[in-house]
Amino acid sequence: MPDYTPPLRDYNFILHEALKIHDETQIGGYDELTPDFTGAVFEEAGKIASEVLAPLNAIGDLEGCTLENGVVRTPKGFAEAFNLLREGGWPSLECDPDYGGQGMPALMNVCVGTMQSAANMAFMMYSGLTHGAYSALHRHGTEDQKATYLPKLVSGEWTGTMNLTEPHCGTDLGLLRTKAQPQGDGSYKIAGSKIFISSGEHDLTENIIHLVLARIEGAPQGVKGISLFVVPKFLVNEDGSLGARNGVQCSKIEHKMGIHGNATCSMDYDNATGWLVGEEHKGLKAMFTMMNEARLLVGMQGLAVASGAYQAASDYARERLQGRAVTGTENPDGPADPLIVHADVRRLLLDQKSFVDGGRGMLCWVAMLLDAEHRHEDPAMREKATDMVALLTPVVKGFLTEEGYRLAGQAQQVFGGHGYIEDTGMSQFVRDVRITMIYEGATGVQALDLVGRKLPQKMGQPIMTFFEYVKGYIKANEDDLTLAKHFLEPLKKASKDLQAAAMFFMQAGMKNPNAALAGSVDFLHLFGLVCMGLSWTKMAKAASVALREGEGDAAYYEAKLATGRYYMSRVLPETGLRLARIETGAEPVMDLPAEAF
Amino acid sequence: MPDYTPPLRDYNFILHEALKIHDETQIGGYDELTPDFTGAVFEEAGKIASEVLAPLNAIGDLEGCTLENGVVRTPKGFAEAFNLLREGGWPSLECDPDYGGQGMPALMNVCVGTMQSAANMAFMMYSGLTHGAYSALHRHGTEDQKATYLPKLVSGEWTGTMNLTEPHCGTDLGLLRTKAQPQGDGSYKIAGSKIFISSGEHDLTENIIHLVLARIEGAPQGVKGISLFVVPKFLVNEDGSLGARNGVQCSKIEHKMGIHGNATCSMDYDNATGWLVGEEHKGLKAMFTMMNEARLLVGMQGLAVASGAYQAASDYARERLQGRAVTGTENPDGPADPLIVHADVRRLLLDQKSFVDGGRGMLCWVAMLLDAEHRHEDPAMREKATDMVALLTPVVKGFLTEEGYRLAGQAQQVFGGHGYIEDTGMSQFVRDVRITMIYEGATGVQALDLVGRKLPQKMGQPIMTFFEYVKGYIKANEDDLTLAKHFLEPLKKASKDLQAAAMFFMQAGMKNPNAALAGSVDFLHLFGLVCMGLSWTKMAKAASVALREGEGDAAYYEAKLATGRYYMSRVLPETGLRLARIETGAEPVMDLPAEAF
Repeated sequence: MPDYTPPLRDYNFILHEALKIHDETQIGGYDELTPDFTGAVFEEAGKIASEVLAPLNAIGDLEGCTLENGVVRTPKGFAEAFNLLREGGWPSLECDPDYGGQGMPALMNVCVGTMQSAANMAFMMYSGLTHGAYSALHRHGTEDQKATYLPKLVSGEWTGTMNLTEPHCGTDLGLLRTKAQPQGDGSYKIAGSKIFISSGEHDLTENIIHLVLARIEGAPQGVKGISLFVVPKFLVNEDGSLGARNGVQCSKIEHKMGIHGNATCSMDYDNATGWLVGEEHKGLKAMFTMMNEARLLVGMQGLAVASGAYQAASDYARERLQGRAVTGTENPDGPADPLIVHADVRRLLLDQKSFVDGGRGMLCWVAMLLDAEHRHEDPAMREKATDMVALLTPVVKGFLTEEGYRLAGQAQQVFGGHGYIEDTGMSQFVRDVRITMIYEGATGVQALDLVGRKLPQKMGQPIMTFFEYVKGYIKANEDDLTLAKHFLEPLKKASKDLQAAAMFFMQAGMKNPNAALAGSVDFLHLFGLVCMGLSWTKMAKAASVALREGEGDAAYYEAKLATGRYYMSRVLPETGLRLARIETGAEPVMDLPAEAF
Repeated sequence: MPDYTPPLRDYNFILHEALKIHDETQIGGYDELTPDFTGAVFEEAGKIASEVLAPLNAIGDLEGCTLENGVVRTPKGFAEAFNLLREGGWPSLECDPDYGGQGMPALMNVCVGTMQSAANMAFMMYSGLTHGAYSALHRHGTEDQKATYLPKLVSGEWTGTMNLTEPHCGTDLGLLRTKAQPQGDGSYKIAGSKIFISSGEHDLTENIIHLVLARIEGAPQGVKGISLFVVPKFLVNEDGSLGARNGVQCSKIEHKMGIHGNATCSMDYDNATGWLVGEEHKGLKAMFTMMNEARLLVGMQGLAVASGAYQAASDYARERLQGRAVTGTENPDGPADPLIVHADVRRLLLDQKSFVDGGRGMLCWVAMLLDAEHRHEDPAMREKATDMVALLTPVVKGFLTEEGYRLAGQAQQVFGGHGYIEDTGMSQFVRDVRITMIYEGATGVQALDLVGRKLPQKMGQPIMTFFEYVKGYIKANEDDLTLAKHFLEPLKKASKDLQAAAMFFMQAGMKNPNAALAGSVDFLHLFGLVCMGLSWTKMAKAASVALREGEGDAAYYEAKLATGRYYMSRVLPETGLRLARIETGAEPVMDLPAEAF
C-alpha cells in the first residue's frame, strides 16, 4: 500500500517564495507565519499524515463501517487515530480562541488539511465536516448555542454533520419535506428522513451535533421556507454533561464506490428535539456558510488525493523495470530500464505533477484571499477579497475535483494491470476521489453558480478585478526575460480566452440563458486553467529569482521551472478548446428533443 | 439496477443506410446480410442481452468469484446463462463451418458482442477470450490440434485463455521466465507462474484450453526466444474424451476494482504437459493473432459499457425531477422539471450519446475492413484492408476505451450522489470499463504501436490511404449542401490536423524518437476523433438522404443529424489541442530528471 511523504519543502516554497506571505502584514496573524514556524507546523502535520493516517487508509477501505442495532463501528484503528488527531490539537487549528481554538489563518488549515487528506481522505472527513458545523454555529448560532456546542466541536470531543439531502431532493432543496414543529419553549420537534449524511453516526466521539435543514410548519413552499436546526445526538444538560438520547437514528449505511472508511448514513429524525440556528426560513443562507467552506474543502480533497496517487505512481515508475529507453539503454546492469525512461509514462506523470504542484499554489492563493476576507485590516480589501473568494469557490471546487479524479486515474494507469488490483491502493485513490465531483454540489452546480450567479454579481466587478490582477502581474514582470516566452505569453493568451468566454456569456446569455449554461462547465475548466497558469507563473518567478541569486538547491528550482514549462506548453492550451466549445452556444446542446436521447 | 435495451434500429441503420453493406458484394458472406436477416439476428442477440445477461450483471459484481481448494465458482446464474449462450450458438457465430461454426462475417460478431458486453461485460469475457484462443489455434495449430480443440471451443463446450503476464513482466514480454522442456514425444513440460489470467479457472465448462507463452530450454533471451503452447486443463484422449488432470492450477483470484464476475487468476504451471503451437521461438507472432483480435474486442468493450451506462443515465435524466428549466417551467404539474431540461445535463448526455452512436459506426466500419481482409475476392483489396486494420487496431483499442471510461464516468455524474452508491449500478459501469484501458496493452502501448510501428509501415502507405479515403469521401459529397457546413468542413479541418501531426512525427521523430513518442497518445486520440468525425459524416449523409426522400421516421433521422452536429461542433475541435500538444515535441516531457519527479 502506498506510503505518504509530506511535501514540506513545497509548502514552504509556495508560502514564502512564490506567495511571499510574510509581506502580507495587513492580514491578521500572517506576521507570525515565519518559515520556521510554518515549517514546524507542516512537519508535525506531515508526521501524523505519514505515520498515523496513511497506514489506516487501506484498512478503512477494506473494512468499511458497519451498522448493528443503530450503532456504527468505524474501521479498526480509526478511534485511536482520532484521539491522536484531537490530542495534537489539529481540529482546533483555525478555530476561534474564545472557544479553545488556536486562531491560525485558513491558509495553515488548508496546507495541513491537504497533507492529511492525501494520506486518508475518508478519515479526515470526520473532522472536516465538524469544522463546517463549527463555522455555521459560530456565525449564526445564539450565544447560548455557541457556549453549548463550540468548545466541544473545537476540541474534537464531538463531531458535526450537515443534513441536507432527502431521497427525492439533492440539488433542488426547495423540495425538502423534513418538518419542524415549534414546542413553545424555543425548541422544535424535527421529523423526516435524510440520506447521504457523511459521518452521520460513528463510534469516534460521545456526541454528534447534526445541523439539519427542515421546514417549520406553515412555512412557504420552496427554498424560502427552509430553516436550519441544531440537533444533538445526545441532549446536552445545563452543566454541559450529556442528557437523554435524542430521537435521531442511523437507519442504514450506504454501500459506496469509495470512502468506505467514512460512514455515509441515512438518518431518521423521529420527533427529535432541535433548536433554530439563525432566522426562521433563512436556513439556506446559514447553511451556505458551511457549504461554501465545504466546497473549498472538497476542492482541497480533489487535489490531495491526486497528490497521494501521484507520489505512488512516480515511485513505481522509478522502481518498476520494463522495456528499454528508445534512445538507448539507461540501466545496462538491470534486465530492463525503469518505466520513467518512457516518454509516455513521463507524460502521465507530468500531467499529474504539474497539476499537483500548481494546484497547491492555486489553493494557497485562494486560502490567502479567504484570510484577507476575514482578517485584513482594510475593509475595502476585505470586501474585494470576499468577492474574489465567492467567484473562485466554484472554480476551486469544480476544477480541482474534476482534474483530481482524472489524474488519479492516470496515476493508476502508470501501474498497468497492477493498478487495477486493489492490493496496490491505486484503485482506492480513484474510487475515493470520485465523490468529490459530486458532493457539496456536483460540477454542473458549481458551474451554474459560477456563470449564473458569480459572474454577473456586482455588474461583473469581481471577474474584472481578476483580469486586472492577471494583467497587472504580467505587466509587472514583462521585463523578466526568463519568464516571457514560457510563462507570460501563454498566461496572456489563456487569460484572453477567458475574457472572450466571459464576453460571449454576457452577450449571448442575455438573449438566451442556455447559451451561457451550455458552456458553463467549459468555463469553469477554462477559469481553473488560467488560475493554474497564474500559479505556475508565480512559482516560476520565485524559482528563477532564486536561481539568479544562487540560493540553495538549484536542482529544486530547475525542476519547478521544467514542470511549469510542461504545464504552460502542454496543458494550458486547453483554454482554446474550451473557448471554442463555449462559443457554439445553446443550439448543439438544446436541439435534441428529450425523447430522442 | 439498469435495464438494457438493445439499440436494434441503430445497428440496422449503420449497416444498411450509413455503411450500405449490401453494396459490398465482393466481401464473402455479405450478400446474405439483408436488413431482415441482420435485424433478426440482432433481435435474438438483444433478447439474450436484455433478458439473461443484464439481470446477472449486478449479481456478478456483488458476488464475484471464489476460490476454494483450487476450484473457482462463478457467481450464481452464470453457469445457466453460459448454457443458454451456448445453446443459442452465439460463441460459434463467426467461426469456421469446418469446425461447427456458422461462418458469419466479423461485422455480425462485433454488433452482437457490443450488445452482449453492454449488458454484462464480465460474463462475456469467458466466451470473448475463447474466441481469441480459437483464432490462434485455427491459424497456427497443427491439423491434429485443430481437430482436438476447435470443435469444442467453437461450440462453447470448452473455453480458452491467454497466458502472457508474469509478476515481473507485463508489457515487456522479453523478460518472461516460464520454461518449456521438450519430452521427446512432441510434448513439453511447462513450468512457471502466470498472473492476471482472465477466465483462468471457472465452473462453466468441463475443460479449459490455456494458450501459454514460455521459453524452450536453451532458447535465446528476449522476445525472440518465446514460444506458444497449448495446455489443456484436462488432457484429451484420442477419442476426444477427457483424460488426466494436467499440472496447472489456479493459486489465487485477484481482488479487483471491477469485472468481479470474471475470475482473474494466478496460474501455476507445475510441469504441465503442453504442445507447441506454430514455430519454435515464434510464439509472440502467433500470440499476436489473438492479441490483435483481442484489442479490437477490448475497444468494443469500452464502447459497449459506455453505451449501457448512457442508457441508464438518459433514462434517469428523463425521470428524476429536480429544479426548473431556466427558460420556464416545462413540467408545471410536477414538483420540478426532469433533469434533462438542464443544459449541462444535456451536455453530459450528448457527450455520451454522440460517442456511443458514432463509435458504433466507427467500430462497424473497422469490422467491415476486417472482413475485407479475410473475405474480399480481390487480393489487392485484401492487402489494403489488412494494412488498414493494422493501422486502426490501436486506435480502436486506445480511443474507444479511454473515451468509454471517461463517458461512463459522465453517466455516473448524471445520477449525482445516487451514482456513487453501488445500488444504482453506475459505479459498476465505471469500475468494469476501467480495465479496458489497461489489458491487452495499455493505452501507451497502443500509442507506441501506432506511432512507432503502424505509422511508418510500408513507408506510410496505410495512413496515406486513410487520408485519401477521407479526402475522397469529402470530395464525393461536397455538393451536398446539408452536409457542407456542419459535417464536411469540420471533418476536413480535423483531418488536416491529423496530417500535420503525422508530418511532425516524420520530421521531428527522425531526429529524436521521443519527439514523436511524447505525443503518441495525443496522436491516438486525434486519430480516433477523425475516425469518429468520418463515422458521423457518413451517418449524417444517410440521415439527410432519408429525410430528402421522405423515408420513414423523420424524428429518428433528425435526431441523428442533431447528435452529429453536436459531435462535429463541440467534440471534434479537440483535434486542434491534440496537434498543439504534439508539436511541443520531446522537451517538455523529457526535460525533468527522473529523480525530480
